[in-house]
Amino acid sequence: MAPALVVTVAACQLGPVLGEVAANLRQVEAAVLVAVGAGAEVVVLPELVTTGYLFGSAQEARGLAEPVDGPSLQAITTLAAEHDLVIAGGFAELAAGDEVYNSAFLIDRSGVRAVYRKAHLWADERRWFKPGRQPPPVVDTDLGRIGILICYDLEFPEWTRIAALAGADLLCVPTNWPASPRPHGERPIEVVRAQAIASVDRVFVVACDRVGPERGVDWVGGSAIVGPDGYPLAQAEAGGRAQNLLARCDLRLARDKSTSAVNNVVADRRPELYGRITAARGMRA
Amino acid sequence: MAPALVVTVAACQLGPVLGEVAANLRQVEAAVLVAVGAGAEVVVLPELVTTGYLFGSAQEARGLAEPVDGPSLQAITTLAAEHDLVIAGGFAELAAGDEVYNSAFLIDRSGVRAVYRKAHLWADERRWFKPGRQPPPVVDTDLGRIGILICYDLEFPEWTRIAALAGADLLCVPTNWPASPRPHGERPIEVVRAQAIASVDRVFVVACDRVGPERGVDWVGGSAIVGPDGYPLAQAEAGGRAQNLLARCDLRLARDKSTSAVNNVVADRRPELYGRITAARGMRA
Repeated sequence: MAPALVVTVAACQLGPVLGEVAANLRQVEAAVLVAVGAGAEVVVLPELVTTGYLFGSAQEARGLAEPVDGPSLQAITTLAAEHDLVIAGGFAELAAGDEVYNSAFLIDRSGVRAVYRKAHLWADERRWFKPGRQPPPVVDTDLGRIGILICYDLEFPEWTRIAALAGADLLCVPTNWPASPRPHGERPIEVVRAQAIASVDRVFVVACDRVGPERGVDWVGGSAIVGPDGYPLAQAEAGGRAQNLLARCDLRLARDKSTSAVNNVVADRRPELYGRITAARGMRA
Repeated sequence: MAPALVVTVAACQLGPVLGEVAANLRQVEAAVLVAVGAGAEVVVLPELVTTGYLFGSAQEARGLAEPVDGPSLQAITTLAAEHDLVIAGGFAELAAGDEVYNSAFLIDRSGVRAVYRKAHLWADERRWFKPGRQPPPVVDTDLGRIGILICYDLEFPEWTRIAALAGADLLCVPTNWPASPRPHGERPIEVVRAQAIASVDRVFVVACDRVGPERGVDWVGGSAIVGPDGYPLAQAEAGGRAQNLLARCDLRLARDKSTSAVNNVVADRRPELYGRITAARGMRA
């Protein structure tokens, strides 16, 4: 079956509560049902939506982490199957050897299609999570090709480029963006970076942020759905409250990488220069 | 002598006239003198500021191109020496073997410090310009370390990253941004991309655009000076008129790549993953 490609995408900006996995899953279900009522076919949830984010120790993180076949992802698979959805979101993954990852799932009605382990870890995350070692997955779904990255990954255009070059139409990005001051009237810089990524890779980007203060940290609450021209199709209202964003996305637009009669954001790259130069200068030990 | 690092940067957004090299140089001189009066120490000019942009043929481009030691860069060297300035801007370079490049100079009181040949060519440029094969130069000046790129190069974060990793404090980007429609109230996407680059590389970015319709093409007139947090310090007023932007830039901020107690935009990169993956997938023929 050819993928639908013209799809309604939702970001469910929620306020998970640290350690309250069952309550968080109920919150997810309620928000997803509202999104389904509005026509959502792809739903993106925040980073670590099942557990909350600000663990105090590796032990606390490990105690809340679940394997891919654990009850949280089973519950979300049931939700996806009942409503024929593609759902992406974050969870604390308990892996072989007791390793814990800041991971994201891509689930459709058939079950877990991909798990991605965050490769770029922010702040204390590195105290309890191991960094991922695999590129962002890009999954062929009935709706289109969907890539997954997590939060801080978006600050590394090298990484988003990999997903785009692998054919992603839509990048789903569960995030927990800690709030920071910004000049009056300015969009959060996290959203600006998502816009630039969408624009240089000519992909749709859905960043689903969270709200609700947690252990003294507040969040941007800056969820956004961005088109491949880099302009937002939907963005969270200010005020840091839970809310669903929705946008109708014609993913076919992401399959045309041309930007003029002769320009193309993929073909115009000059990787033969990027690699040689970066290697020759030995930028990293 | 230690570099100043706290410097006043100007972007002189001008309207060069195609083929009128002498008049364009007078326009440059007038704008630079105004900027000097306002305290400018680094001045950025548009792409191809000496010749104009929309050549009709390779012959026309070659006829207007000049070698690095030609009269246009000599005039700008005189200007830099008289006012002790660092000046970056674009010109059509006539190189050995009659090759023509879309180039940018970095000139200080001692003369031409660097010439950069645009590596990513936009639209018809490829009909008369050869693409550059060298990375963006980063030059130690009395004011700080200055990198140069040109216009469409900014859409390739791989390329700006090279300049940042080479130690640039400030990226000077002569541009000619053709105007295109955008949603009401939105900043030009070209500026959004400059903001994202500044933010992910933690560098200052000065993009100097042009104005003045030329052979039916209009321009964004979107010059901007962006700080390493990604927020504009100065931006061109709407309306597409010639104007000088100025901002005091503390380039020391670009030497601190940390973004949290443990995060650093350079150290947090994972090039061992980027290279392997890109190569393994054979993204380009």
